[in-house]
Amino acid sequence: MSTAWTNDYIAHLSIDCVIFGYQEKNLKVLISNYKFGHDLRGLPGGYIHKKESIDQAALRILKTCTGLDDIYLEQFRVFGEVDRISASPHKNLVRAELEKFDDKFFTTAVTEWMTSRFVCIGYYALVNIAAVDLQPGVLENALEWHDVEKLPELTHDHRHIVECAHNELRENLDKKLIGFNLLPETFTMKQVKELYEAIHGRPFARNNFQKKILDLNILDRINKIFTGAANKAPYLYKFRPKQ
Amino acid sequence: MSTAWTNDYIAHLSIDCVIFGYQEKNLKVLISNYKFGHDLRGLPGGYIHKKESIDQAALRILKTCTGLDDIYLEQFRVFGEVDRISASPHKNLVRAELEKFDDKFFTTAVTEWMTSRFVCIGYYALVNIAAVDLQPGVLENALEWHDVEKLPELTHDHRHIVECAHNELRENLDKKLIGFNLLPETFTMKQVKELYEAIHGRPFARNNFQKKILDLNILDRINKIFTGAANKAPYLYKFRPKQ
Repeated sequence: MSTAWTNDYIAHLSIDCVIFGYQEKNLKVLISNYKFGHDLRGLPGGYIHKKESIDQAALRILKTCTGLDDIYLEQFRVFGEVDRISASPHKNLVRAELEKFDDKFFTTAVTEWMTSRFVCIGYYALVNIAAVDLQPGVLENALEWHDVEKLPELTHDHRHIVECAHNELRENLDKKLIGFNLLPETFTMKQVKELYEAIHGRPFARNNFQKKILDLNILDRINKIFTGAANKAPYLYKFRPKQ
Repeated sequence: MSTAWTNDYIAHLSIDCVIFGYQEKNLKVLISNYKFGHDLRGLPGGYIHKKESIDQAALRILKTCTGLDDIYLEQFRVFGEVDRISASPHKNLVRAELEKFDDKFFTTAVTEWMTSRFVCIGYYALVNIAAVDLQPGVLENALEWHDVEKLPELTHDHRHIVECAHNELRENLDKKLIGFNLLPETFTMKQVKELYEAIHGRPFARNNFQKKILDLNILDRINKIFTGAANKAPYLYKFRPKQ
């Protein structure tokens, strides 16, 4: 039965997901806390069914851990070093824990399969943390949001994968305007600026920033409702969907 | 023997290479003309040895067809649709031709392996056409340079792969200054402009272009040699390697 499970997937090819969220002015990454003890953590990930595309596999993995269907995600890079798992100080630990964990499911053959060489396709996703319903998997104690600047130790090359995804997010922020996926439906200019600052890790000058964002011509300003009272509330904006 | 050959590679994972060159003011792509008859063509590609990284595999494949060691290359995208090979009108043709081709090597098992589902990692490379020594492989009649704007029919999803690589090249031209890999060691500003025009498929205004390129502060101007005669030759430039 368990070998049949691995037979459904393409061997040696995995997907790891860097799921970004934004909360309390900090850029966060979703991290798996494994049931193996030893405080072992890593990126949520999985394998590709023989009968699904790689994008379908990534969406399925994302839905499994966040409950969300409609996620902005993008493949950004393949990690294909020969020793990315075998050189990991955690490899033997993972193998021993898998065998202990449930020897009906994680037979020696399955454990071998899971700890063999994997070429990993990296995806990153942007989610609204408030909408997420975290669903730890069979091997996970918990799924945890961690500040991208204060990541705990991660298994294998997962810290490197997060760094690459973070670079990609910075580069695509202006080009593809993807950052708005991390904001609520309506937001103030101050919130946009704080988001950009969290992603780039540096402050932006207020006036220049506002001009730059408005010049992109992608936001609609929502009219204030006249209440009769003095209205000092800042303007609210909405991202204008592509025509 | 032949099944042993496929055993050396990771199954279901391939590399296809979009090798760009530049000649006579045209952007060119290197295309394999297969021995199968039927004028079947596609991108040079191959598989990944179980004991080499994906970058090593791409460099090996590039060296095999161009003779070059020192090539600018970059992975740019994974093509992972389930039916990218099975839906190809060429699949059965390729299979039949492989079996005819050399039944000691391309046994039914090997042919099955080669025509099964493959997730393809796309690499693009930039080479100096003058330095290339084309080396057709065992399945190729010839390797041919084709204008990117006038590609012949290509097998599977290879035309789509070329289009994605061409987009990536356009996007990275300014950001990573990679275009200079396509020029000779010294060049005139006119040559740089012609290269940019070939890659973007549109004209650039001369003065603006020159200013834009010089403002990047990446070129060294080579002093003209004083010959006594009136010197109307244009200035020559050299790309300044990174510090």
